[in-house]
Amino acid sequence: MKLLRHGPAGAEQPAFIDADGIIRDLSGIIPDLSGDALSDAGLDRLRALDPKSLPAISPERIGPCVAGTSKFICVGLNYADHAKETGKAPPDEPILFMKATSAIIGPNDPVEIPRGSKKADWEVELGVVIGTRAKYVSEADALSHVAGYCVVNDVSERAFQSERGGQWTKGKSHDTFGPTGPWLVTRDEVADPQALALWLDVDGVRRQTGTTATMIFGVAHLVSYISQFMTLMPGDIIATGTPPGVGMGIKPEPIFLKPGQVMTLGIEGLGEQRQTTIEARA
Amino acid sequence: MKLLRHGPAGAEQPAFIDADGIIRDLSGIIPDLSGDALSDAGLDRLRALDPKSLPAISPERIGPCVAGTSKFICVGLNYADHAKETGKAPPDEPILFMKATSAIIGPNDPVEIPRGSKKADWEVELGVVIGTRAKYVSEADALSHVAGYCVVNDVSERAFQSERGGQWTKGKSHDTFGPTGPWLVTRDEVADPQALALWLDVDGVRRQTGTTATMIFGVAHLVSYISQFMTLMPGDIIATGTPPGVGMGIKPEPIFLKPGQVMTLGIEGLGEQRQTTIEARA
Repeated sequence: MKLLRHGPAGAEQPAFIDADGIIRDLSGIIPDLSGDALSDAGLDRLRALDPKSLPAISPERIGPCVAGTSKFICVGLNYADHAKETGKAPPDEPILFMKATSAIIGPNDPVEIPRGSKKADWEVELGVVIGTRAKYVSEADALSHVAGYCVVNDVSERAFQSERGGQWTKGKSHDTFGPTGPWLVTRDEVADPQALALWLDVDGVRRQTGTTATMIFGVAHLVSYISQFMTLMPGDIIATGTPPGVGMGIKPEPIFLKPGQVMTLGIEGLGEQRQTTIEARA
Repeated sequence: MKLLRHGPAGAEQPAFIDADGIIRDLSGIIPDLSGDALSDAGLDRLRALDPKSLPAISPERIGPCVAGTSKFICVGLNYADHAKETGKAPPDEPILFMKATSAIIGPNDPVEIPRGSKKADWEVELGVVIGTRAKYVSEADALSHVAGYCVVNDVSERAFQSERGGQWTKGKSHDTFGPTGPWLVTRDEVADPQALALWLDVDGVRRQTGTTATMIFGVAHLVSYISQFMTLMPGDIIATGTPPGVGMGIKPEPIFLKPGQVMTLGIEGLGEQRQTTIEARA
């Protein structure tokens, strides 16, 4: 299934896309794409519905494809080719950091350039949405805790991330720095999460091209690994790292985002995003 | 006011302590100590109640003193004397990192020692609970966004924090690593958040003694500073750093926690916590 949320920010309703590409309202069936609705049993209940029994809708806005996210966990330097681009050695074990959940927006909402920002950057990433609680799970069991996958843009401010004292979270957490969606594609429809093409354009120029095949730590390993350090909850999102082509890696000079630009990005089978950059709002 | 939450984990009810020290139930008045209830207007509505009109209760368990926490933001090396103890230079600007919200527990709940942990440590900290949304707020306005204060134990696994690749969040986020409470003391009852004594004992031995007067960056500065990087939301918690005396700083040899120990800790006017350490649960 391709699940989505639509409507005004903060008041989104659940929906899905049927086999004919028609968006069908789920607001009479589940309260939201969160909690129990993301479990295997919850998703099976949705699969059993007759799509034609549900209202067809034409949403004006698509919201983030999951709700009730308690943690937005990111993995750093997780593509062999991206690690090389940054000049850093590939990590021995996953680098984890957190993005504020207040950064989550819909896939096509505007992205703010923070006040004083000079190094705003892009990162197309495979997002993993947790379906059921996971603590101390094995790599073999890990994917059974995954509801599905989505596109994430891990927007980053490199100076805030690395030149303002210590930890990366400062450059990763500005409002709108986490476009998520358009769809939550359930894991049964993603044959191999380690064989998906990713891409990102800025103002129509291709900047990132990659494949999840070059991830250093794959999805199953990441879910298992993270669950050794914290309990993953339904709705939690793991952004699994970015392939080469971020702004700070461009030679001879890095390129960063200013207001008035357009990012378009996508992942094979998971849909596309499109964000215009704007000045930060108070 | 001294506000608290009581009842089984995940099903806590709001309450407060009246002038005679009697705990009065608020579950008929507000759904929880979260969201709008934490605003100045929300707190004023509670102040206007006649305590005697509310049921007196004797709770078996005290839960975390705030609900709906979307972010648990911690400040690193924020006491001049603690920075010295770690051998690090005092930071030029606040070091921020995130603790998983799934780590939040009540003040007297057991604290898990993670599997494989050899360096579990304690950190008594002044917790700041946000009352209203704060983005790009000035230092002068910052405290008006604070609902109140509480005790936090920023339990930490030092090897996970610093020896497992990169960012600190890995050593800060295990379930139970965030005892919070017993009370949310509203800001009108804390005359000066920069003049509070803090202490922590392990098995009855005093380990930490300090005062918020030695904070490098005070509460108003921290709220304003953090609001430049992310939007603070009602219920968000800022753990403002720890004074000297953590286990890793003990000479000649560091001391770390094992299952079966007892941490007691408190802050002047904000109450006390007591946790027994146990083996991690799956």
